[in-house]
Amino acid sequence: MFFASDNWAGAHPKIAASLSTHASGFSTAYGDGDLDRAVYEKFSEIFEREVAVFFVATGTAANSLSLAAYNRPGGVSFCHREAHVMEDECGAPEYFSGGARLRAVDGPLGRMTPNNLEKAISHFEPEFVHAGQPIAVTITQATEVGAVYSLAEIDAISAVARKRNLPLHMDGARFANALASLETTPAEMTWKRGVDIVSFGGTKNGCWCAEAVVLFDTGKAREFGFLRKRAAQLFSKSRFIAAQFDAYFTDGLWLETARHSNAMAARLGKVIEASSKARLGWQPQANEVFAIMGKDTMKAATDAGAVFYPWNAPHGFAEPISENETLCRFVTSFATTVEDVDRFGDLIA
Amino acid sequence: MFFASDNWAGAHPKIAASLSTHASGFSTAYGDGDLDRAVYEKFSEIFEREVAVFFVATGTAANSLSLAAYNRPGGVSFCHREAHVMEDECGAPEYFSGGARLRAVDGPLGRMTPNNLEKAISHFEPEFVHAGQPIAVTITQATEVGAVYSLAEIDAISAVARKRNLPLHMDGARFANALASLETTPAEMTWKRGVDIVSFGGTKNGCWCAEAVVLFDTGKAREFGFLRKRAAQLFSKSRFIAAQFDAYFTDGLWLETARHSNAMAARLGKVIEASSKARLGWQPQANEVFAIMGKDTMKAATDAGAVFYPWNAPHGFAEPISENETLCRFVTSFATTVEDVDRFGDLIA
Amino acid sequence: MFFASDNWAGAHPKIAASLSTHASGFSTAYGDGDLDRAVYEKFSEIFEREVAVFFVATGTAANSLSLAAYNRPGGVSFCHREAHVMEDECGAPEYFSGGARLRAVDGPLGRMTPNNLEKAISHFEPEFVHAGQPIAVTITQATEVGAVYSLAEIDAISAVARKRNLPLHMDGARFANALASLETTPAEMTWKRGVDIVSFGGTKNGCWCAEAVVLFDTGKAREFGFLRKRAAQLFSKSRFIAAQFDAYFTDGLWLETARHSNAMAARLGKVIEASSKARLGWQPQANEVFAIMGKDTMKAATDAGAVFYPWNAPHGFAEPISENETLCRFVTSFATTVEDVDRFGDLIA
Amino acid sequence: MFFASDNWAGAHPKIAASLSTHASGFSTAYGDGDLDRAVYEKFSEIFEREVAVFFVATGTAANSLSLAAYNRPGGVSFCHREAHVMEDECGAPEYFSGGARLRAVDGPLGRMTPNNLEKAISHFEPEFVHAGQPIAVTITQATEVGAVYSLAEIDAISAVARKRNLPLHMDGARFANALASLETTPAEMTWKRGVDIVSFGGTKNGCWCAEAVVLFDTGKAREFGFLRKRAAQLFSKSRFIAAQFDAYFTDGLWLETARHSNAMAARLGKVIEASSKARLGWQPQANEVFAIMGKDTMKAATDAGAVFYPWNAPHGFAEPISENETLCRFVTSFATTVEDVDRFGDLIA
Repeated sequence: MFFASDNWAGAHPKIAASLSTHASGFSTAYGDGDLDRAVYEKFSEIFEREVAVFFVATGTAANSLSLAAYNRPGGVSFCHREAHVMEDECGAPEYFSGGARLRAVDGPLGRMTPNNLEKAISHFEPEFVHAGQPIAVTITQATEVGAVYSLAEIDAISAVARKRNLPLHMDGARFANALASLETTPAEMTWKRGVDIVSFGGTKNGCWCAEAVVLFDTGKAREFGFLRKRAAQLFSKSRFIAAQFDAYFTDGLWLETARHSNAMAARLGKVIEASSKARLGWQPQANEVFAIMGKDTMKAATDAGAVFYPWNAPHGFAEPISENETLCRFVTSFATTVEDVDRFGDLIA
Repeated sequence: MFFASDNWAGAHPKIAASLSTHASGFSTAYGDGDLDRAVYEKFSEIFEREVAVFFVATGTAANSLSLAAYNRPGGVSFCHREAHVMEDECGAPEYFSGGARLRAVDGPLGRMTPNNLEKAISHFEPEFVHAGQPIAVTITQATEVGAVYSLAEIDAISAVARKRNLPLHMDGARFANALASLETTPAEMTWKRGVDIVSFGGTKNGCWCAEAVVLFDTGKAREFGFLRKRAAQLFSKSRFIAAQFDAYFTDGLWLETARHSNAMAARLGKVIEASSKARLGWQPQANEVFAIMGKDTMKAATDAGAVFYPWNAPHGFAEPISENETLCRFVTSFATTVEDVDRFGDLIA
Repeated sequence: MFFASDNWAGAHPKIAASLSTHASGFSTAYGDGDLDRAVYEKFSEIFEREVAVFFVATGTAANSLSLAAYNRPGGVSFCHREAHVMEDECGAPEYFSGGARLRAVDGPLGRMTPNNLEKAISHFEPEFVHAGQPIAVTITQATEVGAVYSLAEIDAISAVARKRNLPLHMDGARFANALASLETTPAEMTWKRGVDIVSFGGTKNGCWCAEAVVLFDTGKAREFGFLRKRAAQLFSKSRFIAAQFDAYFTDGLWLETARHSNAMAARLGKVIEASSKARLGWQPQANEVFAIMGKDTMKAATDAGAVFYPWNAPHGFAEPISENETLCRFVTSFATTVEDVDRFGDLIA
Repeated sequence: MFFASDNWAGAHPKIAASLSTHASGFSTAYGDGDLDRAVYEKFSEIFEREVAVFFVATGTAANSLSLAAYNRPGGVSFCHREAHVMEDECGAPEYFSGGARLRAVDGPLGRMTPNNLEKAISHFEPEFVHAGQPIAVTITQATEVGAVYSLAEIDAISAVARKRNLPLHMDGARFANALASLETTPAEMTWKRGVDIVSFGGTKNGCWCAEAVVLFDTGKAREFGFLRKRAAQLFSKSRFIAAQFDAYFTDGLWLETARHSNAMAARLGKVIEASSKARLGWQPQANEVFAIMGKDTMKAATDAGAVFYPWNAPHGFAEPISENETLCRFVTSFATTVEDVDRFGDLIA
């Protein structure tokens, strides 16, 4: 019953097998090997257009370099108040951009509203150097609390960004989960909606360590190569990332694992709704479930082997949480089993 | 006959196997899992004292963060003119330290001389803000051209650094190769000589991606944790690094692979010495061999399937190289075979 | 009737005269001349203890370098939501610190409350690298909207900062105005309350360009010298700053000009209170006055030659402002005259 | 006999007078006042084309921001080994650009040779991310050791830079001295030769503090405004800079002071040539003179009240300097008198 995070699971067997398969033999280093190139091609196929792909080590790197690629002096990026870039990256986005600022935008369940975004951007008059200047908008899909922007919502955010010529970045640490949730295509969820650059995460969805920046504006690719290298994010034996993505994309493994973990989250949601000792915080849309539980129930579940974390209520969450209760986060993954979910259900029945 | 680089080889079978072994099951993320902790312990055993260990993604990251950990305003670090930090990291050391400068120090075959180091440091008067201030000395062991500092040479460098209270960093991208070459211990090659911090590389010696910063001053560990995270170098599924190091250190695999590649380099050196069409640039001490070859010989060897790079002669290299000749670099690895070396020998016999 | 800002006035005649007096003759450059040293001494006298003084070009520089002096990886500083560092410095504090973040703390009229500060700091658990770490607290005295922290309020902020060992910085762009308002001494308003470092501004109070960082911990002075030089803030002919401060401190000119501008603000406040066409936003405490005026009144006053700016209502300001009204800011200075104030009073009578 | 530096002199009486004249009255702050705009116009007249002008606090700031304006990831700028940016700015150029590197180019008397520049640039292959990428060339006119690039030499440097599309920056801390030495026009010495951006210094030539960045590509001006503000280099009472430049340019004061100090240097050169106790290092071209003197002569001159500094011999300086001798630097300024020069002449006759 490990619901602590989707990064507590190791690697999917097919990912592990691919690494073994590709371990022997010699290959050009630093992202220029045959397997690397084949994987770049797969990305272009998946996104239905030519894209530039850059493997990096972590989601934090993908986000930070994506924003840095669009940085300008006095730059301000707009993100949700509870975005990963804001809360969980130790200031890496500011560091990699030499001090560009993140400005918090509110909205329910990790999704900024177009209206709030517009207000936040309008704080900056184009020629007023004292305040700095907007440089980018970044949204997280799926959000940190398991919500998913609809295609229409992305359109609306994108429209606000375009009014000020701001590039739109998508933090896709859980890209596949969002995609599976919306039952749409990568192209529809990104560039067709006006997204310019994506942090494409494989790690949380069954890889060991497979993160990539996907640039739709390939004209920025040359410069990004220097940006990545200078940021110490260019792997020598890049084949070990390529091998993971190769398996990830083969026969739709990535969608299969995403659908599985989403299904487990949905099942967990139902189990909680049915419980007399816990109640759902909100409906899960991807692979995260939030429940309000009594502290005694939490302790009992933990004692019985369930692993999960208490969580701060999202900004604007209106549901009352009593002093004896705690909001808890449960994350499912490719490795979550029906048995685990049901066993947890029994604990809180 | 792949002699292009030691990062063209994939992973040693035992490294690959370890990844498969540890792929399943749940474990705490971000460097705090049981396997992570076991590996940290192994590092302390190997270095014969308590050390603080930080996994990072690349050697460039290890070097850059090591120097950044000691940075101060107007900081200047001293490195060999042809060091990796100077020539091959796209300015990452300067970037991660917010602009600290690298100052080139000369010496034969990638080894700075204590005398040159002293002269370089003496350029900076302690209270003269205009010039900046020394913050660190960094040496590469083994060097970029396959030479190895003797223990006495490290002592001498260290003595110069200590006079100005400068920390001494060792870029150990090929740490194991140097160690095998000197037939000494990690402790003797580092902190017993006054080394304060090490970039400990596993990637070039048979891992996929296993790099660590080893801090002997554990009092700096807390701050380094923030430094690494802010630099986007904290892996979530850190287990995949730990699993590699676990196999690496088990039954002395790391020394075995290093000895093997050194032996292959020595054999290659002999083969070149025996050749009528090529001559050794200098005696190999670790796993790199440099040869001066006629351009026609190069072409013939390349046509026959040998892969290697032309190389710039090191600063101060006195051996004449005619217009029809090229200096070439050959790098051996755990995957280099006697057959490959001898086949190359036949080509240039 | 120039109430646009205290930096629209030029220099006080005595400041200008001092520059002329000291224009001839030769003197050591870069802050080491006799006059420089004499002025440093004056600072120590004024603060009743040894202090380290660093002239810089702008208030933005003073603030940014003060915070940078205490920076650490993943650093977060706490400031009021509407502080100058947050709203008016184009991200300089983040830039100079290589990306340290500012975190907004609320409170009425530009003063953070100790309670809000405590809550903001408590967001950061000491060993949790993902969130970053607190590094400093900065308060503005007087605030951007002309309010002044009482000594007890500074004590309370300072107590919260000390609990987490955070240094306390005071942005004293209007230091003299606050001092005159509180009728206290520099020592009482700063280090006796736990303030560690001050941006000491002379420019807004009658100098051309005279800003200094005052460090109470003189142990940090050596490093600060490099910090300032690297930030391109070390003037060669520093005498021109020293000459301004020399006149500024002679015969209490600085307090005289501050008292004058505060008195003009008080008079302006009374004139507005007495007006039938405008009402005070809040009681002025230093040299800024805020009034809510009908748009027609604004226009009439502007047409009659009054210069002032509309202003955003401070966070949490409860007074209703109708659609036909605007909140306006009026700043007085050493150069504001009774006649100007009264003429404006007549306009809005 | 103050020959220590041209920044030991205070301000020219006309500069001081201008500050007094403009001290009273109210004016828009932050570079937008009437006098500011009039001065920008004067710059355009002087350079015979529209230019964008940005006042900054120091020459270090002008240089650092000029290079930062052209920065790119992994950026490398090329400067003379003994340039001010390299030797005397505490790493500010690297700091302001977030770590871009300076690469030393050699040449006699502070002037890089086109050949050496070409070799240095050719070290960087356009698509090789490991080494970084060239971003700018910067030359100093006049150089740190008082030499002046001829127009043909600037043309040659510029041609090399253009081959790789690199912008050419001129550090004109002693712009006027060089101009007077060449008897040419600002346009001829800069943009007509391919210079893109100039650090235009007034401080060393009679101002208190008047430095400006002059951009010939006015399309970069908008961004530069944010760059300067973020760098804490935007003065509020910018009028005090404008007032200095206003006097500086009126009736050719700037050329008059430059010609005077050059003439004093020439006279000092002659005096040294005529001396039996000292000999010229090289012919002065601007306002710096270098002499090789016996240590006893140095002491005697110093005891008699002469102030000057020993200096390191420039790279490649072939003239033998015995152990009892020292190379010394003498700098003249607007304030140097014939009497002082001749009195010094008497001392070393």
